[in-house]
Amino acid sequence: MKLYSGDLSPYSAKVRMQIYAKGISDIEIELPPGFMTGEFHKTSPLARIPVLDLGGDLIPESEVISEYLEEVYPQVRLLGATARETATIRTVSRIADIYLLNNMFMVLGQARASTRNQGIVDLLTGQVIRGLKALEHYIGEDGFAVCGRLTLADCTLVPALFLIENVIDTVGVANPIPDTPKVAAYWAAIQKNEHAAATLVELYRGLAERRELIAKMAAKEKAKAAAAAAEA
Amino acid sequence: MKLYSGDLSPYSAKVRMQIYAKGISDIEIELPPGFMTGEFHKTSPLARIPVLDLGGDLIPESEVISEYLEEVYPQVRLLGATARETATIRTVSRIADIYLLNNMFMVLGQARASTRNQGIVDLLTGQVIRGLKALEHYIGEDGFAVCGRLTLADCTLVPALFLIENVIDTVGVANPIPDTPKVAAYWAAIQKNEHAAATLVELYRGLAERRELIAKMAAKEKAKAAAAAAEA
Repeated sequence: MKLYSGDLSPYSAKVRMQIYAKGISDIEIELPPGFMTGEFHKTSPLARIPVLDLGGDLIPESEVISEYLEEVYPQVRLLGATARETATIRTVSRIADIYLLNNMFMVLGQARASTRNQGIVDLLTGQVIRGLKALEHYIGEDGFAVCGRLTLADCTLVPALFLIENVIDTVGVANPIPDTPKVAAYWAAIQKNEHAAATLVELYRGLAERRELIAKMAAKEKAKAAAAAAEA
Repeated sequence: MKLYSGDLSPYSAKVRMQIYAKGISDIEIELPPGFMTGEFHKTSPLARIPVLDLGGDLIPESEVISEYLEEVYPQVRLLGATARETATIRTVSRIADIYLLNNMFMVLGQARASTRNQGIVDLLTGQVIRGLKALEHYIGEDGFAVCGRLTLADCTLVPALFLIENVIDTVGVANPIPDTPKVAAYWAAIQKNEHAAATLVELYRGLAERRELIAKMAAKEKAKAAAAAAEA
C-alpha cells in the first residue's frame, strides 16, 4: 500500500498524522509521479492528493482514505467506542475539513493582491471564522479535540489550524484563532502531541520550500523586468 | 428520534432519502423550532439543517447523521459489503457533497444579478463543473451511482443533481449536466427509483414554495417603490 502525499498538502497531512498515530509502518509515503507536470489527473480524476494506492487501485479523498484505514487497520482506533462517540469525532473532523480546510484551500487562489477578488476573500474567510466559532462550542478542554484522547478529529484539525495560522494573512486577513479562546488553547496543547508534532515538522518544511520557490520566481520576474527596462 | 429537516434543504433531502430507502419508520421528520427566526443557532451552533435529535442530544451535518444511521439501523445497508466497496460509495457521495452540493449552496448567495460578484460565480460553478467531470469517471451505467444497487452515494447525488439542474441558471450559468453523458443518463434513470422520486417530490414542493415567496417579496417591493414614486 502506498500513500501519494505532499509535505504542504493539508489533506495529505491529515492522513499522515493518522498513520503515525496508528503506528502503521507498511504504507509507503511519496509524491505521486506526474503530480508537478499535471499528468497525475490521468491517473486520478480529481487530480488531488492524498491518494491511497492499493497496487494500482486508487482511493482518492482524505476523508474516504481515513475511514478506509480505520476499517482495515483496527488497531489504535481513532474513531469512537460507540456510534454516538464516532458521530462526535466525525462532526469535529467535518467542521475542520469543510468549514476550515476547504475554504482556506480555495481562498489561497486570492493570495496575489493585484488580482485579488475581495468578495471571494470575504465569503471564504467568513466561512472559516464561522467554522471556528462552531468549533469553539465542540472543542475539548483537555488537550484533545474530543473524547479525551487522540482521534481523527485531531488529525483533521492540526493541518487546518496550521493553515489558518500561517497562511490566512496572505489574503489580508488577521489570524482569527486567538478570537476563539478554547480553540486557541487546544491548538497550543495539541502541538506538543508527538504525532501532531511530527506532522507539523513536515507542514513547516513544505511551507518553507513553497516560500523559497515563490521568492525565486519573484526574483526572476524582477530581473526580467529590469532587463526589459534597460533595453528600452 | 427526530430529524430536523426542510423540504428544499438538499442536505436534509439526502438524509430523508436514506431514511426512506432503509424503511425506517420511527424517526419523526419536522422543521426545527426557531429555524426561521434565527433562534435555532442557540440550539445547534452550525445553525444548519438537517440535525438529528436524540432526545435533546443533537447530531449536526448530513454526512455525520447518515453514517450514524448506517450504524444504528444496520438493515438495508447503504454502505459497502467490504471496506473497498464502502470507500467507492463514500468517494462518490463526497464528490456530490463537497464538489457539487457545497459549491451550489454557496453560489446561491449570488442569485441577485444587481449585486452579483462574477468572480465568486466563476470560482464556485467552476468547481461544480470540475466535480461533474470527476463524477463522469466514477458513475455507474446501470441506473445506480455505484455497486449496482441503491447506496448512500445515490442519496447525496439526487439532491445535488436536482439543485444543479433547477437552480444553477439563477446565477447565469447553463445546466452543465448534459455535458457529462454518463452522469446525465444516471440522472434520468435514478429519478424513477421510488425513494429518489419521493425525495424529489419534496424538493420540488420546497422549490415552488420558495419561488412563490420570492415573487411575493418582489411584488411588495415594487408596490412600495410605486407608492414612493406617487408620493414624490
